Amino acid sequence: MTTMLPPSESTSAHTPARIPGMTRVFSGIQPTGEPHIGNYFGAMRNYVRLGEQYGQDAIYCIVDLHAPTNPLAYDKATLARLTFEMALANMAVGLDPQKVVFFVQSQVREHAELGWMFTLSTPVGELERMTQYKDKAGKLESIPAGLLMYPVLQAADILLYKADTVPVGEDQVQHIELAREIARRFNHHYGDTFPEPKAVLEKAALRVPGVDGNAKMSKSKGESSTIGLLEPVESIWAKIRPAPTDPARVRRTDPGNPDICLIFDYHKLFSDDATILEVNEGCRTAGIGCIDCKKRLMVGIERELTPIQARAADLRAHPDTVLGGLEHGAERARAIAAPVMDEVRSKMGFLGAAPLVLEQPS
Amino acid sequence: MTTMLPPSESTSAHTPARIPGMTRVFSGIQPTGEPHIGNYFGAMRNYVRLGEQYGQDAIYCIVDLHAPTNPLAYDKATLARLTFEMALANMAVGLDPQKVVFFVQSQVREHAELGWMFTLSTPVGELERMTQYKDKAGKLESIPAGLLMYPVLQAADILLYKADTVPVGEDQVQHIELAREIARRFNHHYGDTFPEPKAVLEKAALRVPGVDGNAKMSKSKGESSTIGLLEPVESIWAKIRPAPTDPARVRRTDPGNPDICLIFDYHKLFSDDATILEVNEGCRTAGIGCIDCKKRLMVGIERELTPIQARAADLRAHPDTVLGGLEHGAERARAIAAPVMDEVRSKMGFLGAAPLVLEQPS
Repeated sequence: MTTMLPPSESTSAHTPARIPGMTRVFSGIQPTGEPHIGNYFGAMRNYVRLGEQYGQDAIYCIVDLHAPTNPLAYDKATLARLTFEMALANMAVGLDPQKVVFFVQSQVREHAELGWMFTLSTPVGELERMTQYKDKAGKLESIPAGLLMYPVLQAADILLYKADTVPVGEDQVQHIELAREIARRFNHHYGDTFPEPKAVLEKAALRVPGVDGNAKMSKSKGESSTIGLLEPVESIWAKIRPAPTDPARVRRTDPGNPDICLIFDYHKLFSDDATILEVNEGCRTAGIGCIDCKKRLMVGIERELTPIQARAADLRAHPDTVLGGLEHGAERARAIAAPVMDEVRSKMGFLGAAPLVLEQPS
Repeated sequence: MTTMLPPSESTSAHTPARIPGMTRVFSGIQPTGEPHIGNYFGAMRNYVRLGEQYGQDAIYCIVDLHAPTNPLAYDKATLARLTFEMALANMAVGLDPQKVVFFVQSQVREHAELGWMFTLSTPVGELERMTQYKDKAGKLESIPAGLLMYPVLQAADILLYKADTVPVGEDQVQHIELAREIARRFNHHYGDTFPEPKAVLEKAALRVPGVDGNAKMSKSKGESSTIGLLEPVESIWAKIRPAPTDPARVRRTDPGNPDICLIFDYHKLFSDDATILEVNEGCRTAGIGCIDCKKRLMVGIERELTPIQARAADLRAHPDTVLGGLEHGAERARAIAAPVMDEVRSKMGFLGAAPLVLEQPS
């Protein structure tokens, strides 16, 4: 079952109401280092908003235990730094580790433990049918078991907190379906324990185009495609200035079509309503040129990113604030996870957790 | 690489010397409830002896996290009791939780955690090729992923303690080979960390025949095949009395051949040397009948089992002694496992464990 998050409200400070049927949200964040503005508009800003609504029931986990399942991307020499950068960026955007539960997966042992419990009863065939597994496995000569087991650990990530709502991109919907199936199967065997989590689509993430004209901004397409959230404004301008616009607008005096222009897409994210109206009109009538239009976009970009980058610089100067916040988050996560694992161990019958019924000696 | 344990020395109190190249031994014990005398002569007695030699470097783990991988045998309603019974029996035989490290796997979170770390890099193909997996999977309509991942967790069980020696039955040798490969692969990627554990064959386990004439005493062949370690002597006699002997010895006056008689096999386990000589001679010359021979066997059985059963009754009357011993063992296990996991997390690059090297802000 998949529902939609309410659409992002541009740059306004509007806070959405609680989503009906949603009592606890879990989101896994890949430790890919500094995020780009696609991540920001697609996910990070929503995390902050949901955090304002849900507080301790907004659980955000940097899923570093998953990182090595992708042998093409994982590097032991950079993982700690990329995890740190992702944490720092989210805090700079406004995710407050004192308000929500924000932590690093490898610092909470219970994830791997519940992962094993679910491994016990998840059919191999279900895992082999996952589209993402088939795609990724097809590119590898030797397939690590971690790639096959990835969605089982992902189910554990969510269900360890009994979360009922998971904001994800389209490509993760099938995994959340599997998590629902894993929850159902556990509940069937051991009695009602887990909610069946719902996927909630992060629509905007799919819509932010790459600055090189690619349909989707993505790190895998390289630096030239992305605008880093913490990228200096001069560097952003160096990418925006030569960025493609409506190819039919060859001369300054040609009218353009903003509907097929990525710069206009960016205006819709960064600029205020008056500016959006003006550049739309100006483009269609050849009232402003593309460079002018791009300069006006930079005003919005600076307004949006400057305070975030200032907070990021401050956090970077005090890395212990970031690390301490994550440690605090891990403690909170463990405080939720530990009784859930006690319940799981008890229901599955493990000695020390389950009641011990001894037969009378014969 | 597989070597042999020195042969069991009947009932003598002989303690073998340390095995060359063996510094820490790990053994996983299935939580199958009350063991039978095949388990006792094949494994349990050796555990006690190795424990006398190796003390804290003898690690014995009741592997209850593996139990649910066998959906045909696992029952959530009995797992805690079967785990308890197996612990009690081992303590009754002489395994001292104050001397060795004796604990229950599900009480030490690091097993599942290291299991996941190894899952990350173990090829699916290697796991699919395991003979035991193919055998067991072939009997199931739906194959749980736990069955496929079983030997990965088993490798984690061993390597979590950096054990170099693993007493196993023949059917586990391939899994220990895989554990060696997993250790090698980790060492190659992350630097020297784990020893490559050696399998040490438990020969006697393969030799104790079932009391119903089956080649090997086994619980899977049912109660009639096994002599329980804690079975009352009257009940054992009720199985021994009708047990098959040399089929050529039809009349009391026929001479028999002890070499093909399971009662003589049992004499070699339970009786003193003088009795073994006497019944061997008496059988071949028709000097004693089979019932007499069986009665003399019962003397040895009683002598061997009575003190064990007395200790078992005492432990059963004080279950907290068993549970407390296991808890103490789990604490010791964690004390060994925790720094190993710190080392693993650090070498794999996880934030909080690995050094954090930040780039200079641009």
